[in-house]
Amino acid sequence: MVDALVNGEPATAVALDDRGLLYGDHLFETIAFIGGRAPLWRLHMARLTADASRLLIPPPDSELLAAECDRLLDGRDRAVIRITLTRGSGGRAYEPPAEPRPRRILLRRPYPSDLDTAREQGLWLVTSPVRLASRSVLAGIKHGNRLEQVLAAEAARRAGADEAVLFDAEGRLVEAIAGNLVLFIGERAVTPAASGAGVAGVGLRALKELLGDRLVEAELDARSLEQAAGILVINSVAGIRPVRRLDDRALAIGEPCRSWQRLWSERFECEN
Amino acid sequence: MVDALVNGEPATAVALDDRGLLYGDHLFETIAFIGGRAPLWRLHMARLTADASRLLIPPPDSELLAAECDRLLDGRDRAVIRITLTRGSGGRAYEPPAEPRPRRILLRRPYPSDLDTAREQGLWLVTSPVRLASRSVLAGIKHGNRLEQVLAAEAARRAGADEAVLFDAEGRLVEAIAGNLVLFIGERAVTPAASGAGVAGVGLRALKELLGDRLVEAELDARSLEQAAGILVINSVAGIRPVRRLDDRALAIGEPCRSWQRLWSERFECEN
Repeated sequence: MVDALVNGEPATAVALDDRGLLYGDHLFETIAFIGGRAPLWRLHMARLTADASRLLIPPPDSELLAAECDRLLDGRDRAVIRITLTRGSGGRAYEPPAEPRPRRILLRRPYPSDLDTAREQGLWLVTSPVRLASRSVLAGIKHGNRLEQVLAAEAARRAGADEAVLFDAEGRLVEAIAGNLVLFIGERAVTPAASGAGVAGVGLRALKELLGDRLVEAELDARSLEQAAGILVINSVAGIRPVRRLDDRALAIGEPCRSWQRLWSERFECEN
Repeated sequence: MVDALVNGEPATAVALDDRGLLYGDHLFETIAFIGGRAPLWRLHMARLTADASRLLIPPPDSELLAAECDRLLDGRDRAVIRITLTRGSGGRAYEPPAEPRPRRILLRRPYPSDLDTAREQGLWLVTSPVRLASRSVLAGIKHGNRLEQVLAAEAARRAGADEAVLFDAEGRLVEAIAGNLVLFIGERAVTPAASGAGVAGVGLRALKELLGDRLVEAELDARSLEQAAGILVINSVAGIRPVRRLDDRALAIGEPCRSWQRLWSERFECEN
């Protein structure tokens, strides 16, 4: 059974000199397929192309990627495919080759079975002890340097929580470990403004397109979290998941969350 | 010809689900072997063990690693071996498995042929346009999240330079792309104090052991560079390389550099 392709060929392994392995020198997209298609494909490809430009990796061929995803899906209705675009092999230590030949690694995974529960009942979040480094040149990019997220996920697991909120080293509220945040403060729905840390999430991008100016950006901090009557975690695969508990505080799951979830489902999860 | 081992077995590739590939979730050491042995082995193993503890990766078995290096050397007098210790496969996305089973990846490369020239004639450095993110929880660790160094190396290559000096986002002088820095300012030899960015280099550690209090740490910035009469780049494989030019300024290669190079050579490059 083929569940992975490397440069279009069935594979189970990647060359030891791949720069993705040596240096985390890669980008990735984790894409939900529903009814055999990816409702957020356009946004994933737009981000992958923009990020590749920032990292000076030759841009991906999105039609080729689409064909390879089709091949991996092999008629399945639902699945998740992670596309990793590495800078390939070669170069001289950190120095990339003058003309990189990127490597495409596609991995198919089962569609998550626990999404409905998480969307309905909500998540338990803790405040992460891991602070994101600030003012990074890599801010916004969905790149392969994810040790901060790994350490934060390990800390959340040890705390028994589902997810965590992350601040940067200067005290700005940035995101969740694997998703962006939306806070309901007073009459407003706000998401942390892009700063020198974090990922520009495709799920958040999609939600912004759905909501327009009903969702605004602002600089947020620990006090913003205290003021929030409700919190959402947004992720392109998991959609909109409310927070039922933050550290020791129970949070309400309000009507905006439910109506936005319906909107998301109608727009991004219809199977026809 | 075996030039790589994965968990002790000859290999050319690594599993696609290895977390080192997926997230840069690994540590590495690049170790020079001279006369069939690694003069800095003890320092490399000490750092690898300390870094593994910080990243919550089970510590390496240094005797096993030594035996595997011997096997890869296969009687060669000189070589460089990169040891990568990944968190292995498994876990749930960013979240590591509760009991990780690390993967050891050993790659043998030729001993560099251009070291004598670089040590004698010196390097041309530029000030990197890439600023290191500041206040990182990963500071000091030789981990697999090296995109900042990749971007800095690409910029240096485009500028035609050999190496570059890197500042953090807050203006502190941190290090070179692949080495630590020593500046001669007035009567003092100083190296940037550990801060929230950069790698605690094994080469620098070795030099400190050689020199004792002749080498001191201090907070340095762009003005420190201007004041420096001489600059060195320290790296465990390349040893001590002087800087002959920084941006448009020619730098002298003084006597301390030459006597330290002799000291280094006597202590770390004798073949008996």
